[in-house]
Amino acid sequence: MKCNVKLDPWKIILDHYDEHEVEIAESLFSIGNGCLGQRANFEENYSGRTLRGSYIAGVYYPDKTRVGWWKNGYPEYFAKVLNSTNWIGINVTIDDEILDLAKCTILNYYHELDMKNGVLTRNVKCRLQNDKEIELNAIRFISMAQKEVGAVRYSIKPLNFDGNITFESYLDGNVVNSDSNYDEIFWNRIDEKSYENEGYVMMETKKLPFMVCSYLTSVLTVNSEKVDSKPNVIEKDKFVSDIYSIDVKKGEVAQVEKFVATTSNRYSENTELLKKTKTISNKACEAGFDALLEAHINVWSKTWNTCDITIDGDVAAQQGIRFNIFQLMQTYTGDDSRLNIGPKGFTGEKYGGSTYWDTEAYCIPFYLSTCNNEVARNLLVYRHNQLDKAIENAEKLGFTDGAALYPMVTMNGEECHNEWEITFEEIHRNGAIAYAVDFYERYTGDFQYVVEKGIDVIVGISRFWAQRVNFSKAKNQYVMLGVTGPNEYENNVNNNWYTNKIATWTLKYTLRCLKKIKEEYADYYNTVIERLNFKNEEFEKWNHIVENMYFPYDEELGVFLQQDNFLDKEILPVKDLNKSNLPLNQKWSWDRILRSCYIKQADVLQGIYFFEDEYDMETIKKNFNFYEPITVHESSLSPCVHNILASKIDNADKAYEMYLRTSRLDLDNYNNDSEDGCHITSMAGTWLSIVQGFAGMRVRHNHIEFNPTLPDNWNGYNFKILYRGNNLQVSVTKEGTDISILEGNDTIDVVIKGESYKLVNSNPIKIQ
Amino acid sequence: MKCNVKLDPWKIILDHYDEHEVEIAESLFSIGNGCLGQRANFEENYSGRTLRGSYIAGVYYPDKTRVGWWKNGYPEYFAKVLNSTNWIGINVTIDDEILDLAKCTILNYYHELDMKNGVLTRNVKCRLQNDKEIELNAIRFISMAQKEVGAVRYSIKPLNFDGNITFESYLDGNVVNSDSNYDEIFWNRIDEKSYENEGYVMMETKKLPFMVCSYLTSVLTVNSEKVDSKPNVIEKDKFVSDIYSIDVKKGEVAQVEKFVATTSNRYSENTELLKKTKTISNKACEAGFDALLEAHINVWSKTWNTCDITIDGDVAAQQGIRFNIFQLMQTYTGDDSRLNIGPKGFTGEKYGGSTYWDTEAYCIPFYLSTCNNEVARNLLVYRHNQLDKAIENAEKLGFTDGAALYPMVTMNGEECHNEWEITFEEIHRNGAIAYAVDFYERYTGDFQYVVEKGIDVIVGISRFWAQRVNFSKAKNQYVMLGVTGPNEYENNVNNNWYTNKIATWTLKYTLRCLKKIKEEYADYYNTVIERLNFKNEEFEKWNHIVENMYFPYDEELGVFLQQDNFLDKEILPVKDLNKSNLPLNQKWSWDRILRSCYIKQADVLQGIYFFEDEYDMETIKKNFNFYEPITVHESSLSPCVHNILASKIDNADKAYEMYLRTSRLDLDNYNNDSEDGCHITSMAGTWLSIVQGFAGMRVRHNHIEFNPTLPDNWNGYNFKILYRGNNLQVSVTKEGTDISILEGNDTIDVVIKGESYKLVNSNPIKIQ
Repeated sequence: MKCNVKLDPWKIILDHYDEHEVEIAESLFSIGNGCLGQRANFEENYSGRTLRGSYIAGVYYPDKTRVGWWKNGYPEYFAKVLNSTNWIGINVTIDDEILDLAKCTILNYYHELDMKNGVLTRNVKCRLQNDKEIELNAIRFISMAQKEVGAVRYSIKPLNFDGNITFESYLDGNVVNSDSNYDEIFWNRIDEKSYENEGYVMMETKKLPFMVCSYLTSVLTVNSEKVDSKPNVIEKDKFVSDIYSIDVKKGEVAQVEKFVATTSNRYSENTELLKKTKTISNKACEAGFDALLEAHINVWSKTWNTCDITIDGDVAAQQGIRFNIFQLMQTYTGDDSRLNIGPKGFTGEKYGGSTYWDTEAYCIPFYLSTCNNEVARNLLVYRHNQLDKAIENAEKLGFTDGAALYPMVTMNGEECHNEWEITFEEIHRNGAIAYAVDFYERYTGDFQYVVEKGIDVIVGISRFWAQRVNFSKAKNQYVMLGVTGPNEYENNVNNNWYTNKIATWTLKYTLRCLKKIKEEYADYYNTVIERLNFKNEEFEKWNHIVENMYFPYDEELGVFLQQDNFLDKEILPVKDLNKSNLPLNQKWSWDRILRSCYIKQADVLQGIYFFEDEYDMETIKKNFNFYEPITVHESSLSPCVHNILASKIDNADKAYEMYLRTSRLDLDNYNNDSEDGCHITSMAGTWLSIVQGFAGMRVRHNHIEFNPTLPDNWNGYNFKILYRGNNLQVSVTKEGTDISILEGNDTIDVVIKGESYKLVNSNPIKIQ
Repeated sequence: MKCNVKLDPWKIILDHYDEHEVEIAESLFSIGNGCLGQRANFEENYSGRTLRGSYIAGVYYPDKTRVGWWKNGYPEYFAKVLNSTNWIGINVTIDDEILDLAKCTILNYYHELDMKNGVLTRNVKCRLQNDKEIELNAIRFISMAQKEVGAVRYSIKPLNFDGNITFESYLDGNVVNSDSNYDEIFWNRIDEKSYENEGYVMMETKKLPFMVCSYLTSVLTVNSEKVDSKPNVIEKDKFVSDIYSIDVKKGEVAQVEKFVATTSNRYSENTELLKKTKTISNKACEAGFDALLEAHINVWSKTWNTCDITIDGDVAAQQGIRFNIFQLMQTYTGDDSRLNIGPKGFTGEKYGGSTYWDTEAYCIPFYLSTCNNEVARNLLVYRHNQLDKAIENAEKLGFTDGAALYPMVTMNGEECHNEWEITFEEIHRNGAIAYAVDFYERYTGDFQYVVEKGIDVIVGISRFWAQRVNFSKAKNQYVMLGVTGPNEYENNVNNNWYTNKIATWTLKYTLRCLKKIKEEYADYYNTVIERLNFKNEEFEKWNHIVENMYFPYDEELGVFLQQDNFLDKEILPVKDLNKSNLPLNQKWSWDRILRSCYIKQADVLQGIYFFEDEYDMETIKKNFNFYEPITVHESSLSPCVHNILASKIDNADKAYEMYLRTSRLDLDNYNNDSEDGCHITSMAGTWLSIVQGFAGMRVRHNHIEFNPTLPDNWNGYNFKILYRGNNLQVSVTKEGTDISILEGNDTIDVVIKGESYKLVNSNPIKIQ
């Protein structure tokens, strides 16, 4: 099943109604502003299959853990993204029949997400069971300009009758999470009040004191003229509404506008919540829908100015990349270091938690390149703020003396995950968090961040690695036993090459940073050493590990081995496997997957991708050519890394194949699960595929390199990348690469396919 | 917390009341007869902590699986041992106050399980809140002579008053399982009827059509005279009772006797159930309590005649071994090949399922030695009957062509377990099932069983092994990847030595059996080959595996390695580990346990135990001395194997230490979980410790060997083993070993500490 959206460079359009596509469309057409977000549910009643969801960033529920077999060390809860007050709802009655598209004859259907402007519109013509025909128009957005505000403009036009229309404009806090472990209601009522044209619902989460208030102001018009229809005022448990009843003639347009302010006690005192939301909601109403919309569009316009990628000649690719960028930008806006990028963003509930290693490994490069440094810095600060929790987490697993293990999944720094082979063993995530510090520093030159905060994080992580390895007498080297690498189709293996690699790298990097602080930030050095209670023995121990770490390697093949004894497996390329076996995770039992050679996502290759400069082209080729053919890419995070490495080794066809798998994952519902929500974090991988893959862009300390690769069958024969970090615009065609400075810098050093150039910001642009 | 029972050679006695000990005592004092069984709950109301449980062998509930993270291949349900109609219940009211020991002042308390006779008695003197003092006497048993019958004799004597006593003698089907995954009620009502002095409750399990009827006949007496007190007849949903109200004088004894017949549609047509149970219940009542009890005691007397072990001079050891034998004998009586030995027997619900590899690896030797061959044979037939399900189970995991994987936990042959590292990977269980066929055959000489049934089982298992291994190019040998050995403190390891060993042995044994059938049972050979659709290539493939299997081994240490790369671990003996770390499974997170060297239970040593004759004494010593010091014995199945091997290598102190750990596990609540029920299957291990361990008894085809070892600090300086198989009585003291023939055989060849003797059954016994 997929939702057959139309191709368009800037819009996602569904021009037909199919009840089976509704839930997928709800995911794809989701809107948000980093603080609030929601699935594209219909405003009016809908009796068909739907997953209603409105979410508030950072407000979660610690849902009691559900496991079959408890393991010592499991967390007590899994933090769930919390479905909260439904604020878009408008129940409509046409001459006593409830409007419900599932029960109408649809005459015309048009649903559009305008990504340029961040606006969701719907135009439907339909015939009710009472033979009344109407035209429905709905437009809504969640304001990028004012983060508490969402607005709906919703109208009904009778097409073949004069009659009565009622609108019930409501707020409803009687909502549940479809992924609740024990079918609990997560919200307690605090208060609700309904007045004429106004009302609010205030609720508090159970267990944790998150308080949320939504305040609604409604306006009724007929043919754009405000109508003084006295609404029927309803007030129930966690529910308020105004019911407007009006008689309209055929062709007249009856319309309700809703201006809703929603915020939580994360941004206000409890006692201020009501006043704040009321003021914002009333003012929004005063300003009016059009003015709010304009302000919202202006923000989107500025956003696109720094992040757009243009692909000529391939609308599917163009739509795909813009959809990915749009979702990332509306999921995380980077102004609150307590927030992060949930795997489903605001498009669904599944998986819970807000933070996975995806943030550091995939998303940070995207935000660094498309936003100001503060956005990525806030993602680093998020982890720094949670360092104490990471140390506690490591202590639960027996580590001591400030060793930090960041959680697999978290909201507030506490581990939520409860699958031992992941929770306790997929520890490579810790390395990605250190890697991101380095990446940020390399990218921005902001070593001051390392001195003030980053060093604490990487020392904590290094201490973890130093305790996690042990010295093998048999090998006379350090080994790391019992881990799960990025390839989750192996569990509890010894000496996963990638984990050993990133652990050793972290130790080296931390030692380098400490040295640099000592040498170049001497004023800070003692403070840092004292703050961290850092001991000289740690230097020695870490150096000893760095120098004596074991890395599985096969001389004959010239490849790093994913783990000890990997070559005991039967190696059979995926292409030789009968297709009926795929996807493995639906067709094979877990043990069969584990003992097979098949790889879910880049593992050794993830390490080669991260530390590319350490390996010569031959090594990269050998490893790629050994591992990619046995990789099934059943993680949404897999194809992008393979695209980038395939581009690197000039395997343009493979790069293109991988790009296809990543770029329209949700739009084309490749994984058959888009109804649960979109794969937000892997969308950063699509962006990486173009920027690091096809454009071959690498940001160095003093210049930027490009090694573009355009596959032969690439329809988008010309693409442009807006690249904020150095105010560049990069244009890659089959003929070559053009780079222009958009504003700011006078000169930028670039290397294109090995040739050095100096870019001069004059008019016209000069390349020297 | 433990339940402080008194030491006694034949009885378990609790001579005081402590509310904290009640649940443990309920487990320890459990009674059963192989068909019915129950925890030692009080008959009357009890408001303190209690786990009420009455169980019916073979009647179970497929409780919907509960897991955190679903893996492809997991079963849909976990078969739960089913709490069923409470048939012992007698509510007592003394002058309008409900008798409830939790609310009384206990003046005297005596609870006794007489293991010789299988009788549970209770004598309590107490003062109620209304200051009335009474003496309560209760005696009950579940008949070994008539498997449907349970009887209770329950009396109250007023000690300091004349007054009114009411007894409500009831059957109550409104019961739940405390281990229900989703708090479901497992039973549907079919019917209930109550009459004067009689009544029944008939119920059916949800999901599966198990129908159960309990029929009750009650008799009221005062001072042993039958009283014609017209009871108040109560009938409610799944509940019937007769309420007797009588006025008694101080010192008089008011008594109710309950005669309950319970059976299921596993033994009757649905339509016959009511009639059958009514007839049995009424007849039991007619026969009377004393006559029923006598018949019951007679069966126990015969049973003890063939299984008792006498230990002079150590009452704790004597009580321990008899408790273990008693529990085994009342859990499984071997007359129904659809039944098996649940891990908690009739003493609790935990773990569910009835069948684990414990049956084959531990219990079969016990039943073979203490009962007629039919009992062990029925345990083999149980697996033969479930072969089709084992083949289906293997198919779910991708195996083909008749490969069979027996489940980890089952009731009816279907896998119930849902933890991938166990369910899918702890496949060594399959080997134990083949091993039991060989053990039975070696023991009984009954090769005809192999020809008719056993061969099908071992061929199915061999096919599984042949598909489960793969040829490693790197090692140029066969390997077995991704398994969990008996030591569950390692998961998903490669080349677990024990699993490789038992797999290879199974192939060899199966080939040997096929050869023997061909040569010695030629009439059957073609039938067998056709029935199994056996191919010649299978011979070749299996032989190739047998000849080219890889076994991890360390030359330097001279030990078999538990798995690949075991020596990468840090090896630190348990004795050098700070005690605060123990038990590991409560103190350490799972990953820490996994990467440590610590072993839960015998693994390599399990293999050496099974195939002892293949290894010389030096090899056994080296392996024992390497592995035992790093074994934490956190499985109840561990100490016995170590006791046996320690005895073998004359490490008497270690053998004695291990015996202490196994023999009073539940009586002394070593694992702090006896309130959940007793560890039934590991009780066979205690028996093995004495018979195979201290006595060093090995049954050979043509003789029996003894290599007794008595540890210096062994208080039981003289013990006798009744050993049915050859009608022997073995007596081991520090001075030597005496063996006498009890009956039957004229001569038996025995070897004692390497010296051969011929035992002649004359009077007096002659040793030649």
